[in-house]
Amino acid sequence: MKDSSLRDAFIDELRDAYDAEHQILKALPKMVKKATNKQLKAAFAAHLEETRGQVDRLEKAFKEIDSKVKGKHCEGIAGILKEGKSVMDEDFDDATMDACLIAAAQRVEHYEIAAYGTMIAWAKCLGETKVVKLLEETLKQEDSADKKLTGLAEDGINQSSMEAAAIA
Amino acid sequence: MKDSSLRDAFIDELRDAYDAEHQILKALPKMVKKATNKQLKAAFAAHLEETRGQVDRLEKAFKEIDSKVKGKHCEGIAGILKEGKSVMDEDFDDATMDACLIAAAQRVEHYEIAAYGTMIAWAKCLGETKVVKLLEETLKQEDSADKKLTGLAEDGINQSSMEAAAIA
Repeated sequence: MKDSSLRDAFIDELRDAYDAEHQILKALPKMVKKATNKQLKAAFAAHLEETRGQVDRLEKAFKEIDSKVKGKHCEGIAGILKEGKSVMDEDFDDATMDACLIAAAQRVEHYEIAAYGTMIAWAKCLGETKVVKLLEETLKQEDSADKKLTGLAEDGINQSSMEAAAIA
Repeated sequence: MKDSSLRDAFIDELRDAYDAEHQILKALPKMVKKATNKQLKAAFAAHLEETRGQVDRLEKAFKEIDSKVKGKHCEGIAGILKEGKSVMDEDFDDATMDACLIAAAQRVEHYEIAAYGTMIAWAKCLGETKVVKLLEETLKQEDSADKKLTGLAEDGINQSSMEAAAIA
């Protein structure tokens, strides 16, 4: 029996990412609702829109390589989102909760940065240049989303949570 | 009742990281064993040593803030490692398995890059300069480990897995 090759592993990765994006689509509206800072709320809402586009690009990638559009349960994102959900149940003050939501979202972004980085490297090896372009577009969005969250944390949210503690 | 503040959230993050590093300590020997490429085997073994040092630094950080050295189950890393374990059970050819091990390890590194990034930002807000230095040392190692893995993939492992498929 022939061992499975990089192409099979690549399809597995696409399926993992497809499922991950769908899990994120379900989680983001809860994060939009939970956030207090207006800019953070807007950032989560904007990323929800972006995520819909990322799902479309994955569907295009499946078609490009003549593979069925299909998800495969992504345990990594499931664990990260479970952790995020349990943070949302804590009784942190509003600014600290916003800081924690950023921390949770950045774990999600970093998981995706690693996953799309892998898929792009493999798609290059497989000579799938159209797929590389699709995945690079998404990676760029994940990178920007991560940097935007760092900016929001450093420009005020972390500091606000210190001030909230000083007043309490 | 006073809401919990950024300091409480920071302690939670330290506990999450402490548990995560212990989970990684258990997983890395299996990855050393499973890897075929000698440089990859060596990279995982070296990171195992580094991880022991990272645990020590977290213990110092707990002491620095007068908090009990304690872990809290890290769901995020648990999910990522579960995913890595299931990849190890696949029947990929050796070079593809190495490429998959790199993919799994980079998800772990990225989780940690996000987690330590958050902890450093919060420790700065809390004025814990000694803790910032400890955490920065670890973040630097995680960054280097991630880049080393990208280098190994690009310098030959991904290509080897293509050649293995061509021969099969």
